[in-house]
Amino acid sequence: MEAVTLADLDDLAVGAAILGTGGGGDPYIGKLVARAAIAEHGPVQLVPLDQANDDWQVLSCGAMGAPTILIEKLPQGEEMDQAVAAWERCTGRAVDALIPFEAGGVNSTAPLALAARRKLPVLDADGMGRAFPRLEMETFNAYGVPACPVAVADEKGNVSIVETGDAAQAEWIARGLTIRMGGQSYIANYGMDGRTAKRVSVPGTVSLAIEIGRVVSGAKRRRERPVEALVSYFATTHYEAAALIGSGKVTDIARREVNGWSVGTVRIETFDKEDADIEVTIQNENLSATQGGRVLAVVPDLISILDRDTGAAISTERLRYGQRVDLLAVRVPEIMRTPEALALFGPKAFGLDHPYVPLGMAKDD
Amino acid sequence: MEAVTLADLDDLAVGAAILGTGGGGDPYIGKLVARAAIAEHGPVQLVPLDQANDDWQVLSCGAMGAPTILIEKLPQGEEMDQAVAAWERCTGRAVDALIPFEAGGVNSTAPLALAARRKLPVLDADGMGRAFPRLEMETFNAYGVPACPVAVADEKGNVSIVETGDAAQAEWIARGLTIRMGGQSYIANYGMDGRTAKRVSVPGTVSLAIEIGRVVSGAKRRRERPVEALVSYFATTHYEAAALIGSGKVTDIARREVNGWSVGTVRIETFDKEDADIEVTIQNENLSATQGGRVLAVVPDLISILDRDTGAAISTERLRYGQRVDLLAVRVPEIMRTPEALALFGPKAFGLDHPYVPLGMAKDD
Repeated sequence: MEAVTLADLDDLAVGAAILGTGGGGDPYIGKLVARAAIAEHGPVQLVPLDQANDDWQVLSCGAMGAPTILIEKLPQGEEMDQAVAAWERCTGRAVDALIPFEAGGVNSTAPLALAARRKLPVLDADGMGRAFPRLEMETFNAYGVPACPVAVADEKGNVSIVETGDAAQAEWIARGLTIRMGGQSYIANYGMDGRTAKRVSVPGTVSLAIEIGRVVSGAKRRRERPVEALVSYFATTHYEAAALIGSGKVTDIARREVNGWSVGTVRIETFDKEDADIEVTIQNENLSATQGGRVLAVVPDLISILDRDTGAAISTERLRYGQRVDLLAVRVPEIMRTPEALALFGPKAFGLDHPYVPLGMAKDD
Repeated sequence: MEAVTLADLDDLAVGAAILGTGGGGDPYIGKLVARAAIAEHGPVQLVPLDQANDDWQVLSCGAMGAPTILIEKLPQGEEMDQAVAAWERCTGRAVDALIPFEAGGVNSTAPLALAARRKLPVLDADGMGRAFPRLEMETFNAYGVPACPVAVADEKGNVSIVETGDAAQAEWIARGLTIRMGGQSYIANYGMDGRTAKRVSVPGTVSLAIEIGRVVSGAKRRRERPVEALVSYFATTHYEAAALIGSGKVTDIARREVNGWSVGTVRIETFDKEDADIEVTIQNENLSATQGGRVLAVVPDLISILDRDTGAAISTERLRYGQRVDLLAVRVPEIMRTPEALALFGPKAFGLDHPYVPLGMAKDD
């Protein structure tokens, strides 16, 4: 895949929602923004991570905020341009290539609009390999790239540059700015050269999202269950393992806005009435799935709640009572399972007591 | 006065508290920081406003936050240096002279520490002519100087640069950062050249603060009432008019933290029991003094609550039941009474219904 075209955007949005594991913001909104830009400026060049030029100035970008707010506070479209321009102004460096900081949700698609307008290539990679709720939860950070300067922009033209000692402080300050900007902002951060990007990024995640979308639409065309096609497909990728960990009906959702995040739990009554309910905990993204005390899957592995019929991932802000769902879990690649990575986004980083056992790697599996 | 020396700091702190009109942060804290720097690096050159070089890069700086927090969250001492350095880094311009953005409280003294360390002159002027609670409430803003970029720093080394369309938005964002930084930050803003500074600044306010301190200590030495000496002194300055508007005992204080400010009211029972109580409204600073519905003084004119014996101004965060006080009101200079200035910091800007009648200028005076 050498470019992202208009024809890819529907699949990308479907795949981004699944990689978003319930969070990352509604990919439909990012798709609209990207579609307008690509229609006007043409396809976006997609560069495989290992083909990035070592000397390129690479910059990551995306949206920050509570997904529940994004669907009511739509982007004007050029917020990200302003964040990236402010980063360039402040560092005196010109950006050669963009990389999404997150694979999933609005952040797979939103950088494409800016890339199309500025004729910048996008690296086929990202810094989370999925969606996470905090900006320090990045492989970029795990492997030593400073988050700062972080540029934060809003739709009113307000821009702020944040310089802090570490990525967690940058998250704290940038989140404060985001709240002040109405709960949704657009940020540029983790500037690095191409050589570094190769070492610290999760590869292939833009094309992966598009392929995931194709698998879902292919299954629907063939009237197969999308979740089964996805489980087979993931086994052929560098994510290696996936499983259908449960099916049922959403019976309870407790969700509120806390400190700029959507947090809560979702209860799913399984179709097999003899099984216990499945409980999914949420902080913007789905963090863990447990059943009668047993951990079915836990962060950083992906947990996506799919509409049983369409295979579309249901984001946390769109969960409703009565939805019939399949729970898909996917093991993350090795680069996201090292001690450095797990210290940032393993179960403990989210206050969960469960140890991390990669999907399909428990002793009794 | 050509320099601010160690010997001036006590008087400066006393005068800054009176110009602070209850706010601006405890000048004692700023004095400690300035004293350490001047002891090590020598006196700070004080340049009369009309002698500023037209081509100088002038930058204003000071502390932002709730005064109640400042007395518990003491500065490390070099926060302002970081704000100014970040402003220089981001604009690519080197600062030739500093100007306090506020006359009063911690902000008369705090810039001196940085000036001593960096061997920068300080203009004998400021942008408020007193203390005000919001960064858009500046003569700089009234007469067309953009507030941005605004650099905001804290004691942990966190720095943020804010770019917005107008000063009120900059206030909103910088206040959000300040809250996130624990309620107290240090900022640099309103960069301008020397020619502009001459046009838009309230002149003479650093030396005025020092002189006010001398008047108070002189009165105490002579066992005179400080407030009476102050009323006589102000008549000889460009502030022109002052008055003792009441004397009494503090009987009630309602004060709380709202959105990063200290707001509330103070009730003063007059010694003459036949008079109604005086009520002073507060937003960091004293905004109005009324007695039985009659306005005694109102913002932007200064209202300072002085300890009856020592003449020391009592800041809002140090007001206590039973304090015996004199209320001093001072008319502000012409540059602060134009329609442009009153739109930013007249009674209406604070939600007060009283029209602004400059002290001593009412028809029945």
